[in-house]
Amino acid sequence: MSKKLDRLCINTIKLLAAEAVQKANSGHPGMPMGAATMAYVLWTKFLKHNPKNPSWLNRDRFILSAGHGSMLLYSLLHLTGYDVSLDEIKNFRQWGSITPGHPEYGLTPGIETTTGPLGQGFANGVGMAIAQKFLAQKFNRSKFKLINHFIYAIVSDGDLMEGISHESASLAGHLRLGNIIYLYDDNKISIEGSTELAFTESVDKRFKAYGWQVQRINGDDIEELEETIRIAQKNVFRPSLIIARTHIANGSPNKHDSAEAHGSPLGEGEIKLIKKAFDWPDETPFYIPGEALEHFREAVKVGMEVETEWNLLFERYRSKFPELAGEFEDFFSRRLPDGWKETLPSFSTQDKPIATRAASGKTLNTIAEKVKNLIGGSADLAPSNNTNIKSEGDFKFQSYSSRNMHFGVREHGMGSILNGMAAYGGVIPYGGTFLVFSDYMRPAIRLAALMELPVIFIFTHDSIGLGEDGPTHQPVEHLAALRAIPGLTVIRPADAAETVEAWVYAVENKNGPVALVLTRQNLPILDRGSHVPANILEKGAYVLWQPDEKKLDILLIATGSEVHLCCEAAKILKEKGVNTRVVSMPALNLFEKQPEEYRESVLPSQVKRRIVVEAGCSFGWHKYAGNDGVIISIDRFGASAPAEILFGKFGFTAQNIVEKALSIL
Amino acid sequence: MSKKLDRLCINTIKLLAAEAVQKANSGHPGMPMGAATMAYVLWTKFLKHNPKNPSWLNRDRFILSAGHGSMLLYSLLHLTGYDVSLDEIKNFRQWGSITPGHPEYGLTPGIETTTGPLGQGFANGVGMAIAQKFLAQKFNRSKFKLINHFIYAIVSDGDLMEGISHESASLAGHLRLGNIIYLYDDNKISIEGSTELAFTESVDKRFKAYGWQVQRINGDDIEELEETIRIAQKNVFRPSLIIARTHIANGSPNKHDSAEAHGSPLGEGEIKLIKKAFDWPDETPFYIPGEALEHFREAVKVGMEVETEWNLLFERYRSKFPELAGEFEDFFSRRLPDGWKETLPSFSTQDKPIATRAASGKTLNTIAEKVKNLIGGSADLAPSNNTNIKSEGDFKFQSYSSRNMHFGVREHGMGSILNGMAAYGGVIPYGGTFLVFSDYMRPAIRLAALMELPVIFIFTHDSIGLGEDGPTHQPVEHLAALRAIPGLTVIRPADAAETVEAWVYAVENKNGPVALVLTRQNLPILDRGSHVPANILEKGAYVLWQPDEKKLDILLIATGSEVHLCCEAAKILKEKGVNTRVVSMPALNLFEKQPEEYRESVLPSQVKRRIVVEAGCSFGWHKYAGNDGVIISIDRFGASAPAEILFGKFGFTAQNIVEKALSIL
Repeated sequence: MSKKLDRLCINTIKLLAAEAVQKANSGHPGMPMGAATMAYVLWTKFLKHNPKNPSWLNRDRFILSAGHGSMLLYSLLHLTGYDVSLDEIKNFRQWGSITPGHPEYGLTPGIETTTGPLGQGFANGVGMAIAQKFLAQKFNRSKFKLINHFIYAIVSDGDLMEGISHESASLAGHLRLGNIIYLYDDNKISIEGSTELAFTESVDKRFKAYGWQVQRINGDDIEELEETIRIAQKNVFRPSLIIARTHIANGSPNKHDSAEAHGSPLGEGEIKLIKKAFDWPDETPFYIPGEALEHFREAVKVGMEVETEWNLLFERYRSKFPELAGEFEDFFSRRLPDGWKETLPSFSTQDKPIATRAASGKTLNTIAEKVKNLIGGSADLAPSNNTNIKSEGDFKFQSYSSRNMHFGVREHGMGSILNGMAAYGGVIPYGGTFLVFSDYMRPAIRLAALMELPVIFIFTHDSIGLGEDGPTHQPVEHLAALRAIPGLTVIRPADAAETVEAWVYAVENKNGPVALVLTRQNLPILDRGSHVPANILEKGAYVLWQPDEKKLDILLIATGSEVHLCCEAAKILKEKGVNTRVVSMPALNLFEKQPEEYRESVLPSQVKRRIVVEAGCSFGWHKYAGNDGVIISIDRFGASAPAEILFGKFGFTAQNIVEKALSIL
Repeated sequence: MSKKLDRLCINTIKLLAAEAVQKANSGHPGMPMGAATMAYVLWTKFLKHNPKNPSWLNRDRFILSAGHGSMLLYSLLHLTGYDVSLDEIKNFRQWGSITPGHPEYGLTPGIETTTGPLGQGFANGVGMAIAQKFLAQKFNRSKFKLINHFIYAIVSDGDLMEGISHESASLAGHLRLGNIIYLYDDNKISIEGSTELAFTESVDKRFKAYGWQVQRINGDDIEELEETIRIAQKNVFRPSLIIARTHIANGSPNKHDSAEAHGSPLGEGEIKLIKKAFDWPDETPFYIPGEALEHFREAVKVGMEVETEWNLLFERYRSKFPELAGEFEDFFSRRLPDGWKETLPSFSTQDKPIATRAASGKTLNTIAEKVKNLIGGSADLAPSNNTNIKSEGDFKFQSYSSRNMHFGVREHGMGSILNGMAAYGGVIPYGGTFLVFSDYMRPAIRLAALMELPVIFIFTHDSIGLGEDGPTHQPVEHLAALRAIPGLTVIRPADAAETVEAWVYAVENKNGPVALVLTRQNLPILDRGSHVPANILEKGAYVLWQPDEKKLDILLIATGSEVHLCCEAAKILKEKGVNTRVVSMPALNLFEKQPEEYRESVLPSQVKRRIVVEAGCSFGWHKYAGNDGVIISIDRFGASAPAEILFGKFGFTAQNIVEKALSIL
């Protein structure tokens, strides 16, 4: 390879990025120009991928954690032959293009995860590395390394300042994820100016403290880059961080090393100067030298070859290990094993009251017996979240095929790691914490929804029912805040039976995250009568109880631990001659997806007398309570006391519901 | 001091904690027992405080970041003479007590900040240290060290696993906050078991990488504790971490070093065994040996003496520096200088359109000229958030009296640091980021609300109006999610004039946080007519425009950048003979606080034809739209394109509002 061609290719990346940002009059040209050399080395000399099949299972994963440098990635995708046309590059950041401001998973071929919110890509990569380790240890056999690749990322100072990088890097070091190779684009520039303004820690020492291998190099030196990546590849027991000293807007005569180049176009004049400095052969915008394109496009041929080779390997694997091969394919196609629902626990009104978190634990355990790629854990609350699979060992160094993960007290890291696992594929990841701490992982939950990743979040201790731990641990606004996220299905089951159904929904669901919201305290098993079908939960809301089908005086609508209170109240009201319908509404968004006719059958619009009962804030409930309805809720923070006392003090009693009902009748 | 008395005192702490947890049948006995020795050494040999005046300004601050060990703190408060009676200890975790499950700021004398959600206390302490440095450099004079103390904390493995500890520790090291001395309760036990399950990083090397001084000791050795704390005190240019190897439930024959002791009572039998092991003189529950109590209570006399001495110092200071002394008192009483509002910018319909973030920047700058304790910055988005005070320098090592803070890309750390600054007092702290990244700092926002701290959050780029950066950066559900937090005032001004008022509200407000939600894009200055008073914003919503006072066909309700669209629509509707009222509703919670009469005058209940317009999700708006209303909102994620295009595509145009209005008339 001639050095001249290397430089031509690198400059092609730089100019494509600078010109696309210029044309959009919006974007971040500095990062792609500064990181072009390392991206070029990685993509042309190391990355194992097939541009014509971006979903080939054994590809290396590449993550641009510094997502604002999206044009770097779009340039690479176009140049190496992915289905990203030059017209799309020219349409950067425009309505309907597949080249949005930040890389979006599911939209553009070759994008492994949505990045932009800093630190997320870093943690997603750790999740991918975990999924890889799990699947590799489970399926690889001597001479059959089905899963055998690296997780690469380019990360920025912003990623490393974010707390989530600490959480996920510490865990990656602990787990000895040697399949991780991250290049740190150390350009010393942040939006406010020099990183010296706020970021003077020793990244080197910090990552060594986590157990990473750390190398420092000149990020513009092709040979150093090659050598360090090779060293990183060989170090199979430690994740690697290559600290590459780079220069923002490298190649731009006037914007080199300037914070101005971070988030603004360079200007037409400056682009001319760059072309002059590069001795660029053609002034035409978006000109790509033929020689450079030809070199980049070698990826197509090589990619098809390596995939073909792998396909042959897989066929040989299938002959030798037919059952494993079948399971492998089932995992990646998210096909659930036959009969997986046959052993689900069932609960009846004869059973003792049980907390939905406990019912969840039982259900998870029976499902996990059958569904062997259900893998997860808790952010150090497993005994409380009931997230342990009892028959499994701990996922840890050299026991990567075990399924009980210990995330540590790292909710945010856990969330983004789960996202990375789901994006990798082959596994059904879940993670638990207290509902109140969903706040700690909210950016990850949002991204799971945006990426439509089927992640299962288990949030226990879902109200003041948590009791003595007090207001710091009692969620109040969290149900509302989660329900407001587009595409997130929030399920708050009313009893053990609904909990089983919620799990079935979550495991069968392939698009978008599901949050299971569960009680600490015991709840009775509700009598749903014979007319309620077993899979009613997927409708989001249903009529649980109504003594007389014809007459309807008042509607009681509730979720979770408040449903049984409504049932009690309804029975008292019946004795007073009031005919009451109790509606259990475990999942608002699923209910909204039902046909108008069904919704009307559950909540008839002419019935204006309604009481909504939920041990959370009222925010969002007026839609169902209506103008004349009453909402029994908590619109303040909770308090520290035993749960029964709190339920009484805050008005969550059958008696209070009865009184409110009588007052509006 | 006899070693015997030391041990008696330490054992008194341990037993009080264990017995209170036992009586409550709920709580965490292990941590207080393991950390009792270091707490004892710190509180009796170092801590400068006056139990009879917990708000004495020059006290050392003590934070129990491991808030689940609250009984350790309550024991110390009771024993050293704070107004926390033994009955309160006996009422641990009960309704109405001042000894809730986790320490709560504002509820219990001597509690400096609310802890429990892990990592928060750690970061709050960094905020306190920053406030101290600012005030010390501003007010201290040679021989007059008015502000001269330490920020102590006990932190746990959980605190150090959380990302926020990384963010705030890195910043503390960068700023060289030598006033910080944290004791790390390194007991090697977390809820799931040994910390070896998930947490094997070298904390020592990690904190050295941040620029901290790190010492390692035996946490049960009184002499080592004394020596290391003394060394830490002397190191004035580096924050200190003392890694103290401790043992959970130290002193409990059967629960020593056991994860079981983390969150469950030890059992009556075990407490008997502990008493036996301690050779305890009296079996009576909550027995406190007189000798121990006497020793602890010396804090009362010493505390009164040191405060008296300081008061004399302050009187001498006042004679010598009367102006400074006045300013000092104003700062701590949050008295605003006379005439601070006189120079506020004013905007009229003649002015060019201006983004509310830009109007915010102008307003902040004029206020900061007068209000000299307004201090803050941004999480590396100052040029976009307009949070810089132009006449000020950077807050940094040896320039601690400057007011422009650089938090780095550390939103969560920023939030909790602001909380710590507000809890310290003397300053009015603010911090900015994009609205979408409020998710990163949500636990801190919640705690500001729970503690009722007057922190100002500046959230810019508040909708799809952000444009090309795309859905990762476009808030959709964030307004709803923030409005759901009890006690948080969310203000989304409609134009520059409302922005000025919003700032006035935020600066005058003494209780609870305020979030200012601001546009990226320019907005016209609205014609509010002469009948709308200047301070109308504090009512939360008001009638902005209505051509005919008597007749009212339809209500248009909007916030922020959608208000001017409603005004345009109303004018078009007027021409069609439809009499429309436009209501600007910048702050829902302030509106809810108004008398029924005012609310009815703005939103008359008999007017059912209503359209709500907000470039965010509809969640929460049905309360105002009513059963028959229409909501123009975004109930999906955004997209990457120029802002004007997005507003058109998503239906945020006067034309669409007109059409919707005509359709319901």
